[in-house]
Amino acid sequence: MDAKLINPFIKSTINVLETMAFVKCTAGKPYLKKNAVAQGDVTGVIGLTGEANGTVSVTFDKGSILKIVSNMFGEEMEELNAEVADAVGELTNMISGQARRELEEINRVFEAAIPSVISGENHQITHYTDGPKIAIPFTVDGGKFTIEVCIDG
Amino acid sequence: MDAKLINPFIKSTINVLETMAFVKCTAGKPYLKKNAVAQGDVTGVIGLTGEANGTVSVTFDKGSILKIVSNMFGEEMEELNAEVADAVGELTNMISGQARRELEEINRVFEAAIPSVISGENHQITHYTDGPKIAIPFTVDGGKFTIEVCIDG
Repeated sequence: MDAKLINPFIKSTINVLETMAFVKCTAGKPYLKKNAVAQGDVTGVIGLTGEANGTVSVTFDKGSILKIVSNMFGEEMEELNAEVADAVGELTNMISGQARRELEEINRVFEAAIPSVISGENHQITHYTDGPKIAIPFTVDGGKFTIEVCIDG
Repeated sequence: MDAKLINPFIKSTINVLETMAFVKCTAGKPYLKKNAVAQGDVTGVIGLTGEANGTVSVTFDKGSILKIVSNMFGEEMEELNAEVADAVGELTNMISGQARRELEEINRVFEAAIPSVISGENHQITHYTDGPKIAIPFTVDGGKFTIEVCIDG
């Protein structure tokens, strides 16, 4: 997969969390996933179509998402409830939206589906494609999260 | 949401499970979800775009999916491992593919993204849309599963 497809997702993630939650996050080095799976407590996932089919997921551990949503809401959130799931849906939408706008500027046009949010302690996510699966680990005050970008072809 | 959009998913689910796993399943009455969420142990989710944006998820309890994959593989599967996740990805793809082909015949054209599969005991899934969310409960020998179809507008 072209690295030009990955960088917009890193940039939009940093930007969305800073704008929406006043949270600074640090991106680690992207890596190609083989069999490993992302593991966490809340995941937002959104499908892509267009010049190729794909999927993007954001998997948070409990510490990172509680810190982020507490900042977003301006009140201390202590459990992974429906409000947190909604916030993860919104963040997933915004991350995908900003990345897609940047990709459009280099003539890589994707459409996005509706995001779904999965909550459940220590779940795992895998993507059903033979194409490359790129993971980007992020750290944030309070925990960590992982973005995965899969785009066929 | 138009009922004509839901029936193809019910029909394709019954057909795919019968063809791939020789399993007969029974569809319950579809219902409009408000706040409730699907709960289960393995979920396949796939995004849709096209005439409208959407998402389709299939959430299995452990009993139903172990029965289905044991039949698919012709050997007794006892745990929710990577092979089971792969099978759920494939089933999700096929259910969405057959339903989309049938929808095309009535000139409702959707594209599908890459399916993602979430494994983790007793997780919950919600869909981030203001549009209607239709759930269809299914029973199968060994357990139950739920299909959710959300299509904006």
